[in-house]
Amino acid sequence: MNFEFPLKELPAVLRGPRVERRRALIGGSAFWGTMVEQGANAGRLRLDDGRVIDAESATYLPPVAPSKIIAVHISYSSRSFETRNKPRPSETPTYFTKPATALNGHGGQILKPVDCQYLNYEGEYAAVISRTCRNVTPDEAWDYIEGFCPALDMGLQDFRDTDQGSMLRVKGADTLLPIGPGLVRGVNIFDQTLRTYVNGLLVQEAHIGDETIWGPHYLVADLARHITLAAGDVILTGTPCHSRSIDPGHVVECEITGIGRVAGTVVAVDAPRASALGVGHQPTDSAEVRRVALGFDERVSDRFKENLAKARNAV
Amino acid sequence: MNFEFPLKELPAVLRGPRVERRRALIGGSAFWGTMVEQGANAGRLRLDDGRVIDAESATYLPPVAPSKIIAVHISYSSRSFETRNKPRPSETPTYFTKPATALNGHGGQILKPVDCQYLNYEGEYAAVISRTCRNVTPDEAWDYIEGFCPALDMGLQDFRDTDQGSMLRVKGADTLLPIGPGLVRGVNIFDQTLRTYVNGLLVQEAHIGDETIWGPHYLVADLARHITLAAGDVILTGTPCHSRSIDPGHVVECEITGIGRVAGTVVAVDAPRASALGVGHQPTDSAEVRRVALGFDERVSDRFKENLAKARNAV
Amino acid sequence: MNFEFPLKELPAVLRGPRVERRRALIGGSAFWGTMVEQGANAGRLRLDDGRVIDAESATYLPPVAPSKIIAVHISYSSRSFETRNKPRPSETPTYFTKPATALNGHGGQILKPVDCQYLNYEGEYAAVISRTCRNVTPDEAWDYIEGFCPALDMGLQDFRDTDQGSMLRVKGADTLLPIGPGLVRGVNIFDQTLRTYVNGLLVQEAHIGDETIWGPHYLVADLARHITLAAGDVILTGTPCHSRSIDPGHVVECEITGIGRVAGTVVAVDAPRASALGVGHQPTDSAEVRRVALGFDERVSDRFKENLAKARNAV
Amino acid sequence: MNFEFPLKELPAVLRGPRVERRRALIGGSAFWGTMVEQGANAGRLRLDDGRVIDAESATYLPPVAPSKIIAVHISYSSRSFETRNKPRPSETPTYFTKPATALNGHGGQILKPVDCQYLNYEGEYAAVISRTCRNVTPDEAWDYIEGFCPALDMGLQDFRDTDQGSMLRVKGADTLLPIGPGLVRGVNIFDQTLRTYVNGLLVQEAHIGDETIWGPHYLVADLARHITLAAGDVILTGTPCHSRSIDPGHVVECEITGIGRVAGTVVAVDAPRASALGVGHQPTDSAEVRRVALGFDERVSDRFKENLAKARNAV
Repeated sequence: MNFEFPLKELPAVLRGPRVERRRALIGGSAFWGTMVEQGANAGRLRLDDGRVIDAESATYLPPVAPSKIIAVHISYSSRSFETRNKPRPSETPTYFTKPATALNGHGGQILKPVDCQYLNYEGEYAAVISRTCRNVTPDEAWDYIEGFCPALDMGLQDFRDTDQGSMLRVKGADTLLPIGPGLVRGVNIFDQTLRTYVNGLLVQEAHIGDETIWGPHYLVADLARHITLAAGDVILTGTPCHSRSIDPGHVVECEITGIGRVAGTVVAVDAPRASALGVGHQPTDSAEVRRVALGFDERVSDRFKENLAKARNAV
Repeated sequence: MNFEFPLKELPAVLRGPRVERRRALIGGSAFWGTMVEQGANAGRLRLDDGRVIDAESATYLPPVAPSKIIAVHISYSSRSFETRNKPRPSETPTYFTKPATALNGHGGQILKPVDCQYLNYEGEYAAVISRTCRNVTPDEAWDYIEGFCPALDMGLQDFRDTDQGSMLRVKGADTLLPIGPGLVRGVNIFDQTLRTYVNGLLVQEAHIGDETIWGPHYLVADLARHITLAAGDVILTGTPCHSRSIDPGHVVECEITGIGRVAGTVVAVDAPRASALGVGHQPTDSAEVRRVALGFDERVSDRFKENLAKARNAV
Repeated sequence: MNFEFPLKELPAVLRGPRVERRRALIGGSAFWGTMVEQGANAGRLRLDDGRVIDAESATYLPPVAPSKIIAVHISYSSRSFETRNKPRPSETPTYFTKPATALNGHGGQILKPVDCQYLNYEGEYAAVISRTCRNVTPDEAWDYIEGFCPALDMGLQDFRDTDQGSMLRVKGADTLLPIGPGLVRGVNIFDQTLRTYVNGLLVQEAHIGDETIWGPHYLVADLARHITLAAGDVILTGTPCHSRSIDPGHVVECEITGIGRVAGTVVAVDAPRASALGVGHQPTDSAEVRRVALGFDERVSDRFKENLAKARNAV
Repeated sequence: MNFEFPLKELPAVLRGPRVERRRALIGGSAFWGTMVEQGANAGRLRLDDGRVIDAESATYLPPVAPSKIIAVHISYSSRSFETRNKPRPSETPTYFTKPATALNGHGGQILKPVDCQYLNYEGEYAAVISRTCRNVTPDEAWDYIEGFCPALDMGLQDFRDTDQGSMLRVKGADTLLPIGPGLVRGVNIFDQTLRTYVNGLLVQEAHIGDETIWGPHYLVADLARHITLAAGDVILTGTPCHSRSIDPGHVVECEITGIGRVAGTVVAVDAPRASALGVGHQPTDSAEVRRVALGFDERVSDRFKENLAKARNAV
């Protein structure tokens, strides 16, 4: 097959030199810039206007403006084991969508309405489309990938019992997709490791090349069979095991080595006004909701058991 | 409850005068215009530049440019009977999404890849959002609805067995949402009747006020509990019973009285190139696919039985 | 004439109740909200998610996303006197454009390259278009105006000698349009007063109803004769006398009573890299540049003379 | 200098293989496709869905969706002679803008209000930006150019006396920028010839490499000194001599060899309604207007004299 990895020959988007683009907000002004890779300013952000600023303390807007966001349900073997008790969920990937209004910047607030109990993190990497893409093979798909971002595919699991599997309310609410701070090309994504932290405690870890079932080129080619992907579109590539629910005050981060680290803080907000009128499906605390929100802790390796327990009880 | 209908007082978007906006393409030029409601030119389209043209023969672009498209699964009692054997699918509506690339104009081509068998029509009316909307009550929601369009929520049912209920490939492929030709305000949508035709034969019919379970204001308030709706966003409001699969060469139309009639023609295209390489879920002919694609003909009233059979065997 | 003011009857956008919409950035998250007009929370910002936050300390994104920005050259009698020595520049308004990339938020940085000397402020109010508008009369134009924003139409006068009057480089550079923090409707713009401050010193002042030559409805009708205006488009309505150049470190603010106050801080950046290679028109210090950048101080009233001098020499 | 041509080494956008992307409208459906360069289908359009259609008879939407359109005033030596009596207008290019609403497709209608006399053609090639671009050198600028399109920068010269040089009403009215049908990369633009035709008669001709003063890389680097260019932005690169006014019924075409041919038809429309109320600058028939609209025929070479006269008196 032409879509197995490691790849025999690296496409340009996976080869160096590394280029990371970020969009910083200073005061009320938004500025694009490129991370400095070498020399005295390495690790700082060179704005396109020439200024070099501290990258750590800056505020960032999402580095993408997608017209659509498509996410794989399960693409890591550990997640497949956790949820399906088998190493592969099926022979082919399945997908859902998040509306563009779910986009959130690095360091942003992730809203948890007070009538909801279960807001789960899922650390992921996103692949970003570079130009109009339709009806391509996996080999060709590389030419349509601009680069990669760290991302957090957050989910309000209280709504798992509604929407018949589309997860619109689970995954689609405002702020449920922190992404950034950078959009990176020139890094071999298959050589990287994904790690998610809650309040600094490691809660997810996976080597991307070893544990993901389908590469981003496969996902792009699969989707582009019937759907035109446009420049800026975001493909979320799935999460490894140990998605768990977190609470207001918790800080969640996803780091993809070589790509970057995105963070968000959970913030409580009032229940929606229409909910008080009985409009719409109300948050539910069913067995299925809890199964997904809380996971099956008995199968967790010792290495993670303590961190997951601490993260759950923090704040 | 404040969201039952008929409404005690009509909001502005449901009261006259009727205003219908269309976007015509003449040669390669796109022009907005307003339908002439009265006088010698009634039924013709007055372009904003002053020209009055024949509305029937014009080519139309979609009258909307949504950043998101959200669709109700089941909102008609007849559809709930057909698929669930009960008058109401649940106490609350459930939703899925279609990407903006599914948009199609009135008179457009609806693509059916040759490796697919089941392309189903679903005649619907769309509600279009007028301005940023979040956390509103059903009563308030009317102020955020710009108007209504006829729409066809087409579905490639061969992919029903994948995507775990999100229906991304069923409902999200390019061209699967013919909409237009006009965006209409000033018409009481609850007084209207929806009718779908295949090759001129009536195949769906429902009085909107009598048969829909939730009004557009309820759907908007429900969604805006957690998701910010933006100007131009499209809410598809569900279809009555008798969704069936149609074939290349078939012309499908959905008419909403008082609003307009949208048409599309099914066109065969090659199977995607990546499918030949074994990439992605392949179209499937399972019992569940056929149940949805073909319906339970035994329960169809005599009035429709012949038309549905003819439509299926046409061309 | 139907476009003189005061108006006999106030259109909805000029009548109460006052509604002010803002878009705040908290961490990396953007949230729309409405200013609280009355009660205990008056003057605070109610986010659409229900939270009420301090409006003064928030960071704001521009409350508009225009596809075009069109500005009147001269629309205040005092500015016409200052630049033309007559109360009216001509019988009809003239216009130029700014690209959307010039947009800047309230509190943003206004860039002054180090090879430029003259960065002028012009305090203005902006009219924002609510929906597609073409071929309307001034009376009808009110229905297409969403509301008003404070704005600063900044200009790098060092480029006045190039672009043959289009002012692309004078007015079009990145960051040269701070706008916001709010988009306001329900306020009679003709009853308001515009004031510009540099480092807190009053440098421009004009009563809008008394001193502007053309109302926003006239400008919209004029432009929409040949150009389709789209939802979100911004019309900048001109500045009164005393536009002057300011320097890095200066804070400039424009307040429109009843509407709000927008601020920006001038920041020095390097000269562009291509300038060092001799590419493009270089900043120029000609008599015409100085005439516009520095004004004719001899005609300034005593009330402003000291403030203008102080502002020029500050920092 | 690093921005003279011919270039020592061709950047990728000027080297083969040639790739031409078009966006066709079939019925109401828009489809992207790629022109077939070789083999039995050469000269036909392969839609991304696999269908191959006749390229000549298709209807095309513009192949670009710019957030800004910036045009050079004068960049051809022959145009500089014609208007300035010298081979170079100045040491550096000057620019104006067109709003995005001026965009028109290949084969579109170009509107001429009946109160206007002078609608001039200007055949040009457009350079299209591929990704966010700021503060680059001319050498670097090539990496930010997606490709080239034929374009017609039409102008209503009746408004030349207003707008103080910005030409907003001259160049900015709806329909005044037919562009397409394709966006082409992989062709050396400097080796091409531009030709404009009115009703099939040659009226403009220029070898791009020999007669243009600044290459597209220079223009991009010049503009990006202060203005962030975004993916899809359009730079119009100027026209050679012999811009003249044409009338309703006339067909105007601009061909760039190797790139394509764009056509438009002039169509009369009513004067705007607001003009009848005396709103705004009225079309003017001044000496300056006529100088630009009609040209100085005495200096036209015999080769063009007859065609220009015929074109003027056609229909």
